[in-house]
Amino acid sequence: MKTILGRELPDYIEGYGAVTPFQGAFREAGIHIRKAVKVTSVDPFSRKVLDNIDLAFDRLNIKDGMTISFHHHLRNGDQVLNGVVEALAKRGVKDLTVAASSIFPIHEPLVKYLENGVVTGLVSNYISGPVAEAISQGKLKKPAIMQTHGGRARAIESGDLHIDVAFIAAPTADIYGNMNGVDGDAACGTLSYAMADAEYADKTIAITDHLVPFPACPIQISQVFVDYVVEVESIGDPHGIVSGTTKITKDPVSLIIAKRAAEVIKASGLVKEGMSFQTGAGGTSLAVAAELKLIMQREGVVGSFASGGVTGYLVDMLEEGLFQALFDVQCFDLKAIDSYRNNPKHQAMSASMYGNPHTKGAVVNWLDIVILGATEIDTEFNVNVTTSSNGIIMGGSGGHSDTAAGSKLSIVVTNLMKSRLPIIKDRVITMTTPGESIDVVVTERGIAVNPRRADLIEKLRTANLPLVTIEALKTISEKITGVPKAVHTLEKIVAVVEYRDGRVIDVVRQVKNHVWS
Amino acid sequence: MKTILGRELPDYIEGYGAVTPFQGAFREAGIHIRKAVKVTSVDPFSRKVLDNIDLAFDRLNIKDGMTISFHHHLRNGDQVLNGVVEALAKRGVKDLTVAASSIFPIHEPLVKYLENGVVTGLVSNYISGPVAEAISQGKLKKPAIMQTHGGRARAIESGDLHIDVAFIAAPTADIYGNMNGVDGDAACGTLSYAMADAEYADKTIAITDHLVPFPACPIQISQVFVDYVVEVESIGDPHGIVSGTTKITKDPVSLIIAKRAAEVIKASGLVKEGMSFQTGAGGTSLAVAAELKLIMQREGVVGSFASGGVTGYLVDMLEEGLFQALFDVQCFDLKAIDSYRNNPKHQAMSASMYGNPHTKGAVVNWLDIVILGATEIDTEFNVNVTTSSNGIIMGGSGGHSDTAAGSKLSIVVTNLMKSRLPIIKDRVITMTTPGESIDVVVTERGIAVNPRRADLIEKLRTANLPLVTIEALKTISEKITGVPKAVHTLEKIVAVVEYRDGRVIDVVRQVKNHVWS
Repeated sequence: MKTILGRELPDYIEGYGAVTPFQGAFREAGIHIRKAVKVTSVDPFSRKVLDNIDLAFDRLNIKDGMTISFHHHLRNGDQVLNGVVEALAKRGVKDLTVAASSIFPIHEPLVKYLENGVVTGLVSNYISGPVAEAISQGKLKKPAIMQTHGGRARAIESGDLHIDVAFIAAPTADIYGNMNGVDGDAACGTLSYAMADAEYADKTIAITDHLVPFPACPIQISQVFVDYVVEVESIGDPHGIVSGTTKITKDPVSLIIAKRAAEVIKASGLVKEGMSFQTGAGGTSLAVAAELKLIMQREGVVGSFASGGVTGYLVDMLEEGLFQALFDVQCFDLKAIDSYRNNPKHQAMSASMYGNPHTKGAVVNWLDIVILGATEIDTEFNVNVTTSSNGIIMGGSGGHSDTAAGSKLSIVVTNLMKSRLPIIKDRVITMTTPGESIDVVVTERGIAVNPRRADLIEKLRTANLPLVTIEALKTISEKITGVPKAVHTLEKIVAVVEYRDGRVIDVVRQVKNHVWS
Repeated sequence: MKTILGRELPDYIEGYGAVTPFQGAFREAGIHIRKAVKVTSVDPFSRKVLDNIDLAFDRLNIKDGMTISFHHHLRNGDQVLNGVVEALAKRGVKDLTVAASSIFPIHEPLVKYLENGVVTGLVSNYISGPVAEAISQGKLKKPAIMQTHGGRARAIESGDLHIDVAFIAAPTADIYGNMNGVDGDAACGTLSYAMADAEYADKTIAITDHLVPFPACPIQISQVFVDYVVEVESIGDPHGIVSGTTKITKDPVSLIIAKRAAEVIKASGLVKEGMSFQTGAGGTSLAVAAELKLIMQREGVVGSFASGGVTGYLVDMLEEGLFQALFDVQCFDLKAIDSYRNNPKHQAMSASMYGNPHTKGAVVNWLDIVILGATEIDTEFNVNVTTSSNGIIMGGSGGHSDTAAGSKLSIVVTNLMKSRLPIIKDRVITMTTPGESIDVVVTERGIAVNPRRADLIEKLRTANLPLVTIEALKTISEKITGVPKAVHTLEKIVAVVEYRDGRVIDVVRQVKNHVWS
């Protein structure tokens, strides 16, 4: 069986099930089902606070084989996932599937639970650090399922991903389960990735280190979805949750790339009243924002919104009147948290509203321009952000595929080489985002436009931008680095990569003879 | 078949279906289902604005027998319900069920559509004016279904009330269907009653007279639930939507009643840190709030929240620091709208979060004190707010039964007589709210406490409040007015009164020999 991109897939994957291959990026229109939910309702006299997590486990009757879920707004400061899994392991529970919107290096303690069978399944949108390596080493019993941010919300809402118990790390929660992320020591801003979990899990538990009297305004996740509240000493380390500040790159090559990306945006004709823009928190991405800001100021353009994970840099643009609104799925720094708390134009969006292709229209559909990264790109513009070029898991789509599909102009910005390895290949090792949704690749050695976008090629040519074919870019880099050796893989599938609509766009196989650090 | 309150009900009602009789006020605990929803998802390139309502009807394929829904935040200024039904009538559609959260005198044009079979079913929480009279006259083919605010949300979310198309009157909407109620000529504040409709209808249409560019921040109803957007010249008359100001009664008898109600609250021991309170927008209710405010100020108490329909009076209490938060299901005046727009402590709640008994806990469950009205009360404390004492429909529960069930102390404030008729009866003509959820009746001639509340009787006695039995109150008033003649009814059932959990608490029968005005 093959995907439309020619990827060979088995019909059936043990531990995953039947495979529906990827059939194209834009196949979401149609009737889909938001699943029914079992709600355990309470009488007016019931209260929800339980003294400790073990009491919650007793009430929840957590059993072998269940799926438990977590959100990643506490990022590399999160202490809830580790704490819950450890406590369940102590109770002798095994064969759990952990559905965490992302996994970070701090979740290293999970590795031993992968090894001893406490955790046998993992579903996530982004996996980095020791857990990613352990999966690549074949330590997880079932293949990991790698989704997109919008795809995860879709999977939860449709029932494809059934969550038995959602554990919601809550920077602030009241005694009836209302939660917000703007107050408390572990304040993280919006709680967008947790919303589908809270609404669609069989049971939802708020775990907080800041238990406040009713009601915890501003309420981001409502009491009507929450079964129990458990107070713990700490849900996370603030230093791992937010970076104090996110900075524009100072690397001269990256600055050139950013400038060119901004020129592409300008030449595309999308810099105009009501425009919208998304970029990440990386140094080059922010440099593109800085360049775009100059253009917008020069031309007196007021945009509609900026979206995505939000940094102080986008907050500045909002406050300077360059955008009418921010759509925030995740606050990256303290300035973003403050802005979200205080500015009604800084609006939260759930992961579903952000990128779920099976709603009546996600925010990404309204996006003009998105700036994206890549670990590999192939000559058909397919992008890999899931594995490194040696085939080891080191990330995942997050919102990559969602925004690429939704936006009018998706631009990958990347150095032509990283760590002496070429970025552009004949075939990416792992397909994350299909080339049909990638419009432009901007490098320090030239700009390649997807041939599907003849309209755009015309515009950039008129603007005298240094266009090259993607094949030419590949040739340039291979002249310097040589053609990299092919990565040899074993038969064993360690991860299944789902496109945002739930179809399988690729699999990750165990790597042969990898020397682990 | 009888309810637990002894009401005789048929097993089956033509046009309604099988009857499950009321079995007690506090039977909500257990597992309930939030229903699955069909979502027509769109590709990134689809747009939602349609040029006129007829185009929407074409797309929606509205057919005979469908259920269409409306919210009532525009109250007696609403032009959307009439406009939609009239346009559908012109297209020859018939046998519609109109599920409107409330019906007001402005909806008088509906009467002719009841008569000619365009509309054969009506589901509502409150019906007043010509439509109520027409139903009482037997002009609606099927019995009207009268629900509570929380019960309506429950019915929609559970699937008991299936909505084919929800028409959401939107004071502001953007071109992708995001809506808010705080801007535009027809600003009404929160859109709480429309939320379940938007989320659970097969199709959802935003009807607006204030179409704005994307995004319409602050978003109250999300684009992800909205299929189409239609712009019309006007959705409502501001004069009918909000009253410029709501005023405390000046009637000396009502003021005495309000003072006594406040004394009851004080004596109950509930005036303390973290207390919560709900009252209506009527003159006597606001007078109770004024008295309570004095007590809170005197005792230096800061409450947790006030809830319900919100008036400027409650906004003042929030701003003076007497409450930490407001939970707003409906803004009653301009001051409330302004506060909701600007103050993050003024929080909207959906009708489901307000009073749906089949969630994991509605706000009413957290309510200490509620002040309620009554058109009749019987000696078992059952309350009628559905029909007048002559048996004609003139209202409905709204949030009456929801708050009575949820609160720790529910107080009915009423004059002993109205229009020379006694309020206290042996049996109310129509049961709206069961006596087991009503704690106290305060009148100008004494205070009657429900015998179930021995604890409260003790406290009020200690405080030397003028306690009487409800039978004594009945006797006092009957000495003045005489015993009113029994109302004679025909067999025909014109309305079915559902308790908040969907069980039938009573039926309204057509009245015999009524002289219509």
